[in-house]
Amino acid sequence: MKSIVTFGELLLSLSSPGHSRLVQAEDFTARYTGAETNTAVLLSQFGVQAHVVSKVPTHEIGQACINTLRRFGVHTEHIVRGGDRLGLLFMEHGASQRPTKVIYDRDPSSFRQIRPDECDWDSIFAGKDWFHFSGIVPALGNDVLDTLTIGIASAKRHGLKISCDCNYRGKLWSRELAGQVLTPLIEQVDVLICGKDDPTRIFGTQPEQEITDQAGFERMADTARKRFNLESIAMTFRDPISASRNGYSAILCHGGNAFRSRRYEIQIVDRVGTGDAFAGGLLFGLVSGFEPQRTIDFAVATACLKHSIPGDFNLISREEVEQLLAGDASGHVQR
Amino acid sequence: MKSIVTFGELLLSLSSPGHSRLVQAEDFTARYTGAETNTAVLLSQFGVQAHVVSKVPTHEIGQACINTLRRFGVHTEHIVRGGDRLGLLFMEHGASQRPTKVIYDRDPSSFRQIRPDECDWDSIFAGKDWFHFSGIVPALGNDVLDTLTIGIASAKRHGLKISCDCNYRGKLWSRELAGQVLTPLIEQVDVLICGKDDPTRIFGTQPEQEITDQAGFERMADTARKRFNLESIAMTFRDPISASRNGYSAILCHGGNAFRSRRYEIQIVDRVGTGDAFAGGLLFGLVSGFEPQRTIDFAVATACLKHSIPGDFNLISREEVEQLLAGDASGHVQR
Amino acid sequence: MKSIVTFGELLLSLSSPGHSRLVQAEDFTARYTGAETNTAVLLSQFGVQAHVVSKVPTHEIGQACINTLRRFGVHTEHIVRGGDRLGLLFMEHGASQRPTKVIYDRDPSSFRQIRPDECDWDSIFAGKDWFHFSGIVPALGNDVLDTLTIGIASAKRHGLKISCDCNYRGKLWSRELAGQVLTPLIEQVDVLICGKDDPTRIFGTQPEQEITDQAGFERMADTARKRFNLESIAMTFRDPISASRNGYSAILCHGGNAFRSRRYEIQIVDRVGTGDAFAGGLLFGLVSGFEPQRTIDFAVATACLKHSIPGDFNLISREEVEQLLAGDASGHVQR
Amino acid sequence: MKSIVTFGELLLSLSSPGHSRLVQAEDFTARYTGAETNTAVLLSQFGVQAHVVSKVPTHEIGQACINTLRRFGVHTEHIVRGGDRLGLLFMEHGASQRPTKVIYDRDPSSFRQIRPDECDWDSIFAGKDWFHFSGIVPALGNDVLDTLTIGIASAKRHGLKISCDCNYRGKLWSRELAGQVLTPLIEQVDVLICGKDDPTRIFGTQPEQEITDQAGFERMADTARKRFNLESIAMTFRDPISASRNGYSAILCHGGNAFRSRRYEIQIVDRVGTGDAFAGGLLFGLVSGFEPQRTIDFAVATACLKHSIPGDFNLISREEVEQLLAGDASGHVQR
Amino acid sequence: MKSIVTFGELLLSLSSPGHSRLVQAEDFTARYTGAETNTAVLLSQFGVQAHVVSKVPTHEIGQACINTLRRFGVHTEHIVRGGDRLGLLFMEHGASQRPTKVIYDRDPSSFRQIRPDECDWDSIFAGKDWFHFSGIVPALGNDVLDTLTIGIASAKRHGLKISCDCNYRGKLWSRELAGQVLTPLIEQVDVLICGKDDPTRIFGTQPEQEITDQAGFERMADTARKRFNLESIAMTFRDPISASRNGYSAILCHGGNAFRSRRYEIQIVDRVGTGDAFAGGLLFGLVSGFEPQRTIDFAVATACLKHSIPGDFNLISREEVEQLLAGDASGHVQR
Amino acid sequence: MKSIVTFGELLLSLSSPGHSRLVQAEDFTARYTGAETNTAVLLSQFGVQAHVVSKVPTHEIGQACINTLRRFGVHTEHIVRGGDRLGLLFMEHGASQRPTKVIYDRDPSSFRQIRPDECDWDSIFAGKDWFHFSGIVPALGNDVLDTLTIGIASAKRHGLKISCDCNYRGKLWSRELAGQVLTPLIEQVDVLICGKDDPTRIFGTQPEQEITDQAGFERMADTARKRFNLESIAMTFRDPISASRNGYSAILCHGGNAFRSRRYEIQIVDRVGTGDAFAGGLLFGLVSGFEPQRTIDFAVATACLKHSIPGDFNLISREEVEQLLAGDASGHVQR
Repeated sequence: MKSIVTFGELLLSLSSPGHSRLVQAEDFTARYTGAETNTAVLLSQFGVQAHVVSKVPTHEIGQACINTLRRFGVHTEHIVRGGDRLGLLFMEHGASQRPTKVIYDRDPSSFRQIRPDECDWDSIFAGKDWFHFSGIVPALGNDVLDTLTIGIASAKRHGLKISCDCNYRGKLWSRELAGQVLTPLIEQVDVLICGKDDPTRIFGTQPEQEITDQAGFERMADTARKRFNLESIAMTFRDPISASRNGYSAILCHGGNAFRSRRYEIQIVDRVGTGDAFAGGLLFGLVSGFEPQRTIDFAVATACLKHSIPGDFNLISREEVEQLLAGDASGHVQR
Repeated sequence: MKSIVTFGELLLSLSSPGHSRLVQAEDFTARYTGAETNTAVLLSQFGVQAHVVSKVPTHEIGQACINTLRRFGVHTEHIVRGGDRLGLLFMEHGASQRPTKVIYDRDPSSFRQIRPDECDWDSIFAGKDWFHFSGIVPALGNDVLDTLTIGIASAKRHGLKISCDCNYRGKLWSRELAGQVLTPLIEQVDVLICGKDDPTRIFGTQPEQEITDQAGFERMADTARKRFNLESIAMTFRDPISASRNGYSAILCHGGNAFRSRRYEIQIVDRVGTGDAFAGGLLFGLVSGFEPQRTIDFAVATACLKHSIPGDFNLISREEVEQLLAGDASGHVQR
Repeated sequence: MKSIVTFGELLLSLSSPGHSRLVQAEDFTARYTGAETNTAVLLSQFGVQAHVVSKVPTHEIGQACINTLRRFGVHTEHIVRGGDRLGLLFMEHGASQRPTKVIYDRDPSSFRQIRPDECDWDSIFAGKDWFHFSGIVPALGNDVLDTLTIGIASAKRHGLKISCDCNYRGKLWSRELAGQVLTPLIEQVDVLICGKDDPTRIFGTQPEQEITDQAGFERMADTARKRFNLESIAMTFRDPISASRNGYSAILCHGGNAFRSRRYEIQIVDRVGTGDAFAGGLLFGLVSGFEPQRTIDFAVATACLKHSIPGDFNLISREEVEQLLAGDASGHVQR
Repeated sequence: MKSIVTFGELLLSLSSPGHSRLVQAEDFTARYTGAETNTAVLLSQFGVQAHVVSKVPTHEIGQACINTLRRFGVHTEHIVRGGDRLGLLFMEHGASQRPTKVIYDRDPSSFRQIRPDECDWDSIFAGKDWFHFSGIVPALGNDVLDTLTIGIASAKRHGLKISCDCNYRGKLWSRELAGQVLTPLIEQVDVLICGKDDPTRIFGTQPEQEITDQAGFERMADTARKRFNLESIAMTFRDPISASRNGYSAILCHGGNAFRSRRYEIQIVDRVGTGDAFAGGLLFGLVSGFEPQRTIDFAVATACLKHSIPGDFNLISREEVEQLLAGDASGHVQR
Repeated sequence: MKSIVTFGELLLSLSSPGHSRLVQAEDFTARYTGAETNTAVLLSQFGVQAHVVSKVPTHEIGQACINTLRRFGVHTEHIVRGGDRLGLLFMEHGASQRPTKVIYDRDPSSFRQIRPDECDWDSIFAGKDWFHFSGIVPALGNDVLDTLTIGIASAKRHGLKISCDCNYRGKLWSRELAGQVLTPLIEQVDVLICGKDDPTRIFGTQPEQEITDQAGFERMADTARKRFNLESIAMTFRDPISASRNGYSAILCHGGNAFRSRRYEIQIVDRVGTGDAFAGGLLFGLVSGFEPQRTIDFAVATACLKHSIPGDFNLISREEVEQLLAGDASGHVQR
Repeated sequence: MKSIVTFGELLLSLSSPGHSRLVQAEDFTARYTGAETNTAVLLSQFGVQAHVVSKVPTHEIGQACINTLRRFGVHTEHIVRGGDRLGLLFMEHGASQRPTKVIYDRDPSSFRQIRPDECDWDSIFAGKDWFHFSGIVPALGNDVLDTLTIGIASAKRHGLKISCDCNYRGKLWSRELAGQVLTPLIEQVDVLICGKDDPTRIFGTQPEQEITDQAGFERMADTARKRFNLESIAMTFRDPISASRNGYSAILCHGGNAFRSRRYEIQIVDRVGTGDAFAGGLLFGLVSGFEPQRTIDFAVATACLKHSIPGDFNLISREEVEQLLAGDASGHVQR
């Protein structure tokens, strides 16, 4: 069994029911989430041994967070307990022309108070295969950044592959700062996941010529791949028809070639966590040694299915992804 | 801050959950509603001082109704307390080919028992800018009609602009009676809101020639505008693809010109109250002194967003309407 | 008033709420269901006297099942009480590219333990007009099959029309076994309902030439009609765009002619039970003496409306079907 | 199987969840109720054939009311359909020192609009054993009173026993009017159920001496029994420790003797409908030919159990009452 | 109409449903609360004009908090908008031997970031009658303490009566620090509310002799009254039989005399907010000019009723308190 | 950290909400349970390493069961996957005089289909401290009994302490059969837990003289202890005042001495699982090396707290038990 380690913040997500607005809510649905952890939960459903490194308070809300991860098979023994509070977010689900809205209340969180000496990276990484983090992590303060930096060095020493999902959050930092902080980190990763505008807007990668078609994005992705000396770079394309309907596809650039997935047109149940699901599907393909075409197809089918599941976790099995890849997108009742 | 006064019945709306039918309901979602009040609630979200004039019972259900209006910032001090009961409606939400259904249980209500001497219109209107009512009001009996008539005269004396939303309800009266009763009232209003068939079917305004395109509706609207000596007339167009999907647009005829909005294709969460939302968006544009084109665009964007919100109130901010007008109809997650 | 008798298993359906997955469920929505019973419930809404013959345990869960049928007007006095347990199914509702999934837990059920001497078919059928069962029944064991066989003979003696809905369930038996067991039964029925692939896959009816259009299906249906000496055969066509959207239409072959319905494009609320709804609409047309074209139109409109109603029962009235047939598929609010 | 006919109004009960107040409610629990109907539902659980005579509207809410009665085995074919609306009540459940509160919204109801010619009493009563109504019925208007009066005469002609539960409601009429209207009706009944203060306060039965103990109530009950020429009179005693805890007992005066039940101390889940449950238990004993002591014991145990069940219906079996009578009041888990 | 101003923090309370534990919660009930605000809400139900001074964020959660206060009639125009976040608390309701548990997550809150210049106390207090705060306020940091100190001085200048509810919270500060900070504030108030141990434990008021009966507490309360030069001091006595049942009573020392309330034995629905309810009942008596005995009786009956209502707000009317005072603690159904 | 292994069936528990009856349920609360597993979950909360050995189906319901155990920290890697179905039970919660009722639907379950070769007991027990099972296990068929018998032998070889909770279920087998099958098993255990009537009714242990006081039970327990050569025997005493209120205490006989706990009077939230909680508290005391008096006190306090928690799991911490033991049974709010 392959094993992966993720590092990132854990949050309590409080969402108003159905499509109601936050000002209408008398009850909040409580879920525990985190970009990297969502990826870890999915990989656990796929049969990968997934370890989460994070920090949560000692009280019952921190415990409830850990319990949720354990429920879905994630290994939680490297989660540090302590600090003041679990970061929070309030969320309402949009529909049609109304966008989904998120209000963060994440500072000061236990995770931001993590200290490098609280993570024994060398013992965490011993015998593991892969290390994954997202671009949110280094935005959460110097203690977090220091801990990550030490972790990346340790992972390299232990021979793990390393991946990063850009995951730019405008509410956390500017594009300039993000580019500046992320660049030295990404130079050490093997696999980068980003959106189609990230190379230009965050890393300043200028396309050689104006991008007018998908081939242009492929060229730009490959430029970024070379610049950061990456093994692979994956880029996702979302076609936001409305808050209720999206087109979705992706490419994987690997070894100088670009592999395109099919495009799904999706009726959205819950769009949150679909990027983390893409990362999970991609890492599963890579860690399992799939061919690049099969890898990107698998990643996109995985992300596609997430859109149909309420909550941030992508609770699907590998068999369900394979079934969609085999062509059954019809939603026939299985009986 | 601009101020508006609305006059109309308040009702308790009891709806079966989700898409379930009334005969399946073990619980009803309880909401308080009323065409004019829905408009007032929206205007209050936009920062307008909104006053509701109505009558509800003294008991806890009447109080709960008032509390709901206060919750969303509406001024309730001119709501008369007394009478026998709050009018009711039972509702189930349709989907696909099944229409939304409403069962009214509104007679005898406290509002129908209102007496002209219970509303001190002159003190209510002092210092206010706008008076709004709908075509439902005069259908609710002679006491209500008398009270409205005296109110309109007082509003005119105090220099308020007056608007009426036709809102024809076949379950309350015939088209003939509606036309007969509404005509002298509308002759006193400044702004009329109606559906595309109302001029012909209620007021007997015959189009000069068969209407084959939108320009024909614009000519007919302008004919009605002249006939009633209106400042403006707004007409909405709903393209009912199914109970789950609608096209929606409108025109505003003002000063001899017709201004057309864009057309939105909408995935429906809750269609009830969208007409009241249109009225609210329109009145906000007019009371704020927007240009006619911006006014009708604002009104249609306001109504469009209402379709995505459960309940009869359009709980959106002016900023959210402006964002949609600025072109972001994609439903991107905001974070 | 016309009367119908159905025979089939009753099950407790436990579904996870909304679009959530079974592994997410903390609560299950409890419903009682059964293919033939769903048809009976619908016919009862249409004003037909509907009797269910089945067997359920004596305990409270068996009683709750009977209570549910009584609630919707079905006659339950011929339901045998006894045996060990009520069959169960767990269900989650799919969306977009994720299919709806059903897990059966139906063995050993009270119904499978029914003995032929527990059903006094002659007294049950006295004065009744129609007998209906589905292809699920003979898959449930020899006791059930014996009871059905005796029932069919009795129904024939009493001059009832007999109908069968193929309803092939791959989780219960192989296509070969199904074809073998069903053939002698269907030779005795008057009306057969099946999907477009059933004649070939279950009964081995080879189309004369490759089917490339609907006319081909009509020829194959007529071949099956002749082979089994049926009065009518109805065939449904589902176009599975996704788990959220389907096209739906059907044909009725009767007296050598094929009658085609219109095709509805449907936004799905709950797809389960739509086949049973089609059967109910069809039987209503036949038992009411509708013309073939009106019969198939009525059946398809009935099934179309079912897709908008949560749960396995099609809780609609004849008037609502007629309204859809009259062309109002727009979902206008009725008020 | 014994059979009973009840006559009374049916209402929609809308209650706020748990112990919340009406002004807090965002949802109402919807139940259908009626004093006499609650008794009929209970008798149906006990295996008595129970028929309800009433009038409800033709729309879906009227149908939902009928469906609820059918669900619990009550015969509804004598319920007239028509009239304007179903009477309503809003309810909140008290606790500790806060009383349960009911707001009625019952006028004008379909039942109040019943006309004597709408009930074919002679065919309704043919072959039946018992007729039951409550003192609420004659308070609901002259049409209702006329219909009841004709019904009583018909019941007498057909040899049914007749019972009346006083059920005085101060919100409907004064004690004086109640006494005046009820007296000629009660003179025709065989069994009267009342609270300990009803003889004095409604019928003006003065106790011979001040009542200082239960024997005094027994003497007064017997006086009332003689005055109205009753076969039996039952009187209930509630000791209202708080809204959460009550003592409960009763007496039955029959043939000059008084039979006392034991007293239960009850932790209250839902107190509403307990009087109707007492009536049901009493009528079951009488119609089954129980001895007087067993009859009153059975009635009180039946009412005791109702306090533990949410909703107005007493959904218990005869076996459960017998088990409590046999001494198992301990609430041991049964497994 | 009398008017009151309260000053204190507003919090979002997230509680697990029913008696479930926080680690079991999949949903949280969302309520907005605050010790002083709970008192203001109650006074508003009693017809007092209640103004809340506080600070909440500009986002939707801050708005939802304000909406909740408006819903129940509180004046919110003096609530400052801004700062980072609304303080939070997580709560689970205990039962029997298991205590209710609260986890605070209140730092850094918008209220703690309030600056003295954000409250225009002089204009707030103009024409008002009473100022109320609790001992929680000065524990929330220097900015809050400064703002309060300036407020007290302003209230004194405008001739308002001032009251303080001790409300010691061990999770916020030590008893020593509390005593030190509170002493100079309480020297300026007119009315002090405290628990029976507060004089000794916080203010170091040593009883002259060991307290063995209620008279001892009365003497100690009077000592405290004199020391702080108070007009009145009220002291509450809770007899914690279990988390489900409490005894409750209080005394009021005024003008050298002690007035004792009756003691209620209470079945608890929700114990949170009962102290704030006592304060509200007491202030209502004082501001209304009740006699001391009636004041303390009214306050205790008010607090008693709160125990039966879910949530932190005491949503009762003055009539309901009077009814309990008049002796009806029986919880009879009102109909 | 100490470690324990439990062996027993896992079931899906479906309960009607609140105090509603099964025939009222439209939704079931879904929980996963099992006598021995409930004990394991509690021990995990106390910090013991708890392993469950059982068998559940491979489908999603089996997975959901495992997920629930993982959520609360139980080790599930020794749970065999396979077999036909998860056993079920339907439950309604009683109140006052109405008992809690359980309907089992547990045959044929995956656990009953377990084969001895599916449990590698030797590797399971390596390095573990304790083995626990209940008297339900051997009632579930020969395969289960064989597996248990081999397990006990293995546990003895590996030097584990063994405990058994009698847990007699009359719906599974007769007392005679239970006694006959259990005797040879209990002869091999170290610790036995039973109710006060079990020694006589199951094992035929006749008290030397009629038991008139607790000392009599202590003598009988000691007799049983000697007969089975037990290290300790614990006996629980439940005083069933009503389904809402119980007295609860226990004794522990060890080394010829009897240790009595205090008696708690408990207001019941959920009584199910309290026996399993007692076992968990007892085993924790024994495995932690507590003195006998402290052990029985700890076990009874643990069981007492379970009564306040909904669901079958006792989700409390060791600190909370210690707090109750330290005398705080008052349910004071902790803040």
